Amino acid sequence: MFKQLSTRIVLVQPSHPGNIGSAARAMKTMGFHDLVIVKPKRYPAPEANMMAVGADDLLQQARIVETLDEAIADCSLVLGTSARDRSLPWPLVHPPKAAEIILGQAASVKTAILFGREDKGLKNEELQRCHHHIQIPANPEYSSLNLASAVQVLCYQLRMAFVDASEAPAKPDVEFGYDDEMADSATMESFFQHMDVTLHDMEFLDRDTPNRVMPRMRRIFNRARVDLTELNILRGMLSKMQSHLEKKNNK
Amino acid sequence: MFKQLSTRIVLVQPSHPGNIGSAARAMKTMGFHDLVIVKPKRYPAPEANMMAVGADDLLQQARIVETLDEAIADCSLVLGTSARDRSLPWPLVHPPKAAEIILGQAASVKTAILFGREDKGLKNEELQRCHHHIQIPANPEYSSLNLASAVQVLCYQLRMAFVDASEAPAKPDVEFGYDDEMADSATMESFFQHMDVTLHDMEFLDRDTPNRVMPRMRRIFNRARVDLTELNILRGMLSKMQSHLEKKNNK
Repeated sequence: MFKQLSTRIVLVQPSHPGNIGSAARAMKTMGFHDLVIVKPKRYPAPEANMMAVGADDLLQQARIVETLDEAIADCSLVLGTSARDRSLPWPLVHPPKAAEIILGQAASVKTAILFGREDKGLKNEELQRCHHHIQIPANPEYSSLNLASAVQVLCYQLRMAFVDASEAPAKPDVEFGYDDEMADSATMESFFQHMDVTLHDMEFLDRDTPNRVMPRMRRIFNRARVDLTELNILRGMLSKMQSHLEKKNNK
Repeated sequence: MFKQLSTRIVLVQPSHPGNIGSAARAMKTMGFHDLVIVKPKRYPAPEANMMAVGADDLLQQARIVETLDEAIADCSLVLGTSARDRSLPWPLVHPPKAAEIILGQAASVKTAILFGREDKGLKNEELQRCHHHIQIPANPEYSSLNLASAVQVLCYQLRMAFVDASEAPAKPDVEFGYDDEMADSATMESFFQHMDVTLHDMEFLDRDTPNRVMPRMRRIFNRARVDLTELNILRGMLSKMQSHLEKKNNK
């Protein structure tokens, strides 16, 4: 079951309605739905719906308010995104730490993340409303993420942290990607014997000159870790080769 | 010192030039610069430069190529973003694991991340060129991230992992468990062609009955990731088989 995340996304005075739509889309892809917009320059606007592509429901539900106060009145944890160093140092975290802080709260603690204006970000008095500032580690020579991109990154990071937390001892990452049971050690051993015999029959290997072919084959296939379907194909190839060699020798 | 990251971003047949510009911007904010575009529908185009906002230099340096082969020929680690479950399961990782895999490589291993078409993503044969597939954990009911957003998320995750790693003790710069350079994508492709021809000559494969042998072989060897010594042995086997088949047919 895919769980919606309740963290509120607050856009403070966005200038371009297209960015509001893109931000809604970014939120929805990551399972967020609570969008509040403080004093947008121009909204509603067709560009917003155009950029939302299928996330119009979020725009429809979005609350438009006049002040930041109204946007976060019911929140007890507020984080603000900030690109610049401010004159007054504030607890500053990277997104993974922000996600940890947010997910570490009781579910009843209403949380908001604030995103500032496209050009000037959040004002000092707005940043001072925050418990933490979040800094996305960016290229110092070119740090301006698009507004919707910043929303995407934060929502992604929260979703990712949520997945990690809920899947904790679940499957190892790379274990996915098979369509059959893994071959066990005995099965692999019999495959390597089969290969060894075939390579000798082919005169690719010579019993009297030990070389490093078979150890390397073991290394490759042990690294790859094959499932039973794959193993059957590989053994099929060996058998086919042997039948060619027999026919050749019987001619 | 802010370090540029050398992972290549490959956009496969993007339809909208605006997305190319936004992707370039997303890359630059996270310190990436190597952009390759495979057969864009329309490019160069003014929308691309408009959306790049200050990342025009990346567009200027970008390579435009006709085929995926050209885009990744020199890469020995290729990861492809994939939203859907495919018929043939492939090693599938979330972005943090992908970042770990990429940063765990020697700096000399050229790496690419592939992003598919806005509407249809990467095709199966393109996905089969990859060592790993990357899935951004998204809302199953609304999983379509905007192309530039997907680029932003992956570049962010790599940057974040890089920041984490540089704060920790340095990583060994050599890949563990190999005794030669890794085979790059062009070399692997020529190996798969060689195998395909040999398996047909052996009548193990039949041109008219497409089956899933070659995709599975690609999966095994992409999972294993072979070095040049190993690859030479494998190719030696194929050549030896072919010489047996020729002798047999000449008898």
